[in-house]
Amino acid sequence: MEENKHVLIIGGGFAGLACAKKLANQPGITVTLVDRENHHLFQPLLYQVATAALAAPDIARSLRQLMSKAANVTVLMDEITSIDPDQKQAASKHRVYTYDYLVLAAGAQTSFFGNDQWAQHTLGLKSLDDAADIRRSVFGALERAELTDDLAERKRLMTIAIVGGGPTGVELAGAYSDLAKRALKTNFRRLDINKLRVVLVQSGDRILKPFDPDQSEYTKEHLEALGVEVVLGHRVTGVEKHTLLFDHAEPIYAETLIWAAGVGASPLTKMLGVETDRGGRVATCSDLTIPGYPYIFLAGDVTAHTDVKGVRVPGLAPAASQMGQYIGNKIVALSSAPGEHPEDPFVYHDKGMMAIIGKNAAVVKMGSMKLRGLIAWIAWLLIHLLFLIGFRSKLSVLIQWAWAYLKDKPGARVFTSRATPPTSVLE
Amino acid sequence: MEENKHVLIIGGGFAGLACAKKLANQPGITVTLVDRENHHLFQPLLYQVATAALAAPDIARSLRQLMSKAANVTVLMDEITSIDPDQKQAASKHRVYTYDYLVLAAGAQTSFFGNDQWAQHTLGLKSLDDAADIRRSVFGALERAELTDDLAERKRLMTIAIVGGGPTGVELAGAYSDLAKRALKTNFRRLDINKLRVVLVQSGDRILKPFDPDQSEYTKEHLEALGVEVVLGHRVTGVEKHTLLFDHAEPIYAETLIWAAGVGASPLTKMLGVETDRGGRVATCSDLTIPGYPYIFLAGDVTAHTDVKGVRVPGLAPAASQMGQYIGNKIVALSSAPGEHPEDPFVYHDKGMMAIIGKNAAVVKMGSMKLRGLIAWIAWLLIHLLFLIGFRSKLSVLIQWAWAYLKDKPGARVFTSRATPPTSVLE
Repeated sequence: MEENKHVLIIGGGFAGLACAKKLANQPGITVTLVDRENHHLFQPLLYQVATAALAAPDIARSLRQLMSKAANVTVLMDEITSIDPDQKQAASKHRVYTYDYLVLAAGAQTSFFGNDQWAQHTLGLKSLDDAADIRRSVFGALERAELTDDLAERKRLMTIAIVGGGPTGVELAGAYSDLAKRALKTNFRRLDINKLRVVLVQSGDRILKPFDPDQSEYTKEHLEALGVEVVLGHRVTGVEKHTLLFDHAEPIYAETLIWAAGVGASPLTKMLGVETDRGGRVATCSDLTIPGYPYIFLAGDVTAHTDVKGVRVPGLAPAASQMGQYIGNKIVALSSAPGEHPEDPFVYHDKGMMAIIGKNAAVVKMGSMKLRGLIAWIAWLLIHLLFLIGFRSKLSVLIQWAWAYLKDKPGARVFTSRATPPTSVLE
Repeated sequence: MEENKHVLIIGGGFAGLACAKKLANQPGITVTLVDRENHHLFQPLLYQVATAALAAPDIARSLRQLMSKAANVTVLMDEITSIDPDQKQAASKHRVYTYDYLVLAAGAQTSFFGNDQWAQHTLGLKSLDDAADIRRSVFGALERAELTDDLAERKRLMTIAIVGGGPTGVELAGAYSDLAKRALKTNFRRLDINKLRVVLVQSGDRILKPFDPDQSEYTKEHLEALGVEVVLGHRVTGVEKHTLLFDHAEPIYAETLIWAAGVGASPLTKMLGVETDRGGRVATCSDLTIPGYPYIFLAGDVTAHTDVKGVRVPGLAPAASQMGQYIGNKIVALSSAPGEHPEDPFVYHDKGMMAIIGKNAAVVKMGSMKLRGLIAWIAWLLIHLLFLIGFRSKLSVLIQWAWAYLKDKPGARVFTSRATPPTSVLE
């Protein structure tokens, strides 16, 4: 009798989870799914946890629970720190993992383009802890602004600067301005909530660069109507405490500095012995393997993949899911017919992209179709609800959104007062 | 024209919030409500956040939002560190507060009966941060138990010891055993979840001491049927890392040590210049003031009050609310007729007490009426839903409870991996 083939999946994001689902209960295959966290995170809605519109459990599901019916899948919460492609091994501080097939789907992390010291003064948005930190910073600053009698301090406390004009930056900026305009309107007695200053800083000449220029312009105008200061053509050249520095412009002083300007691949890509781009991403072969290692697959944000049709696959959730599904199917095929190595390459199916700006406003781009305004906003809501995993979460989110829409009171706006430094339960 | 009377309320728990609501929009009165956190916490359901059955925002409401329609109430997030009864002042690190009336409703904190060094090895349950810490400890330990090959370590990781057989201890013990039996049944591949060991340690000879002995016995039997080890007559005499020590019994080794054995009043009671009991509580006058200071009121867990009928007021949410309401009405009366000092004393209306044990099981005591089993469980659910503030929270909790009941899958069981040390945004 043949031994089972063992698949090691590193990362339980969209790519890793989609792959594990394809491999679930497949005969002849055992799977180990390893993630640093105990949950799959629906990252497209993470900004809503940061703005206190949703609770953390609304957008996260236990990986164990998601895999509870897949008897051949073992979920382990662990942090892989090294990969040996030739020995077919990977290791953490706790264990050595062997594999017949490796699926590296370890995702992205906030990148500071070589200025890692900026991390200590800025907040990224990749995890639930990050979202809790941003929420604590913004709402905590408003509490201290209400408390203080020092007007200069109050001004700084009431400023949020967001670096990066991608969807995350746009969505955060829109949501915080919207909060001030609606939900927080009657909450303060000493400060004027209309003076909440939200600054969105973009190095390039327009925001939402992957969208069409007129969508960028629409978004900018809509954000400005909400009260956001959109600052274009400003490249951050230094970050100090509560301060963004520029070469040819005045510094911006803000209590909360959010860094949404760049992501880079997990550092694990460096251990594969292949070239990576500036963001640590790997240009994978047409079947998402790496040259010389037909049993090592990469998926999601660790790749810089151009598919056989010449399409550069974007770092979006649907793309990661498609890659994971493709790899899952591939491994099933390979392990059931071990001699063959079928040549069907990965082909990306573009599902479009979208960003929400505020109440009744979003932009959507799907191939040649472009939407904006209310219709785009409705499309955004429906698609995000549809893809949010798990019926209960959907219902809970639907209720909260409906309530927020009707009552102008998004979210419980609760934060806890203790800060969370980077020490993990795994340490 | 008379100046407004200024009321300083310290603490936004059940007592402080009830008082603030009575004073809301009262002519001639301005109120400052100060709390260390930005939210009112529905503490009776806090254990469900610790067991991951509910999300933190389900049981907490922004104090600002609760007071948003009370134009005469200013909410400040601050930590009062001193009180001067004679100068009519209180102070924090940030401000000095003056008052015409002081309402001290600062609540209770976990007490170790003089062994404060035990705090570093045990987890209390008073705040949302505490609940997150317990959740992280318990679920994180199960993750590491699944990861490890060391059987002795796995055994320790799969042990939860809870000190204190009051409602909190009983509810936590029941909920964790229930989780193992139902929600986590198919979640693990390497460990046997049936071996999850939950130990409830009680120094006295029965649990749920304020209830009737037959209710204590029923609760003990029901917990044991769920798999909980109920250890009676064991007084903890030492706490070390992962270890409870006893004078005349073997130590108990457990990854998670939860301290639900005692609470003491906020240390602010020590600054009033009056006597306090062993738990720091103040024996208040019949009108909830302290001797010699008719303008200083105490409410809730800072009091050890015996009312005019000789009833010792228990440390329960309804009692705290009643005290807060009484004080609010009193201050309205005093400030509208400053010469008089009406003599109507505070009278406690006993609403009974209840504790939930597990699915379909609870105990209720209301005067001479005693309930247990399914009917008590239904009463528990209805009353907790009824008193949970805010319609949206109620609906969300109702859905989650219904789902958990029908699907045997309580909660998202998501935790974040970073630990939270005691540094506040206020520092």
